[in-house]
Amino acid sequence: MRFDHAGVATDDADSLAGLYAAAFDAPVAHEEEFDGLRVVFLALDDGYFELLEPLPDADGAIPRYLDRHGPGLHHVALATDDIEAALAGAREAGVDLIDESPRPGAWGHDVAFCHPKSTGGVLVEFVEH
Amino acid sequence: MRFDHAGVATDDADSLAGLYAAAFDAPVAHEEEFDGLRVVFLALDDGYFELLEPLPDADGAIPRYLDRHGPGLHHVALATDDIEAALAGAREAGVDLIDESPRPGAWGHDVAFCHPKSTGGVLVEFVEH
Repeated sequence: MRFDHAGVATDDADSLAGLYAAAFDAPVAHEEEFDGLRVVFLALDDGYFELLEPLPDADGAIPRYLDRHGPGLHHVALATDDIEAALAGAREAGVDLIDESPRPGAWGHDVAFCHPKSTGGVLVEFVEH
Repeated sequence: MRFDHAGVATDDADSLAGLYAAAFDAPVAHEEEFDGLRVVFLALDDGYFELLEPLPDADGAIPRYLDRHGPGLHHVALATDDIEAALAGAREAGVDLIDESPRPGAWGHDVAFCHPKSTGGVLVEFVEH
């Protein structure tokens, strides 16, 4: 299991991307609109920041997070070569899964989330590129 | 700049370490008491989870975080071979620094934190091993 990215909820992905590029040497690697969000991936040497900005009038987890917490660190994603095996292992270890099976995520990856109530309050995503 | 670790505030590091070892294939790599905290590093293939549990009656940022937010994702750390240069670059990009110069952190590393108000709500740590 490798670190893939830190997901960041923001209300201004472009400004934050410019700042992180300059401050953390993390240039834009990919951007798209996906599932009501503007999504910008910034490349570290061995992983990414994923900036998540709700599109106007969008509904969902990120707008709710911004309303409750304000901008900040939203989740951490672990890369695996076998997401089905990762889900089975997590389930067996007692983790509650938000996604019982992989679903399409940003950048064409397969993703699945673990419920933070079962992982010490941390929203953990599995991602298979 | 490489991903180093995701810092997790918890009130039970050992239970969470056992769960993460089983669920995310992340065994204990290092543990110590540091600065009023029990600190447990769990190894991913290319980085770590850093579990941070306040020692009894300890004061500081992690107990305050737990009081306000409950357990969860606390910060993200980026590894650099030159932390002074990383701090200079961040400062020049407009980031406010909590630590203007590196200080000793857990596991014998040099660390310095950026102020989350200047980085989109994300607490970013620089670490030089």
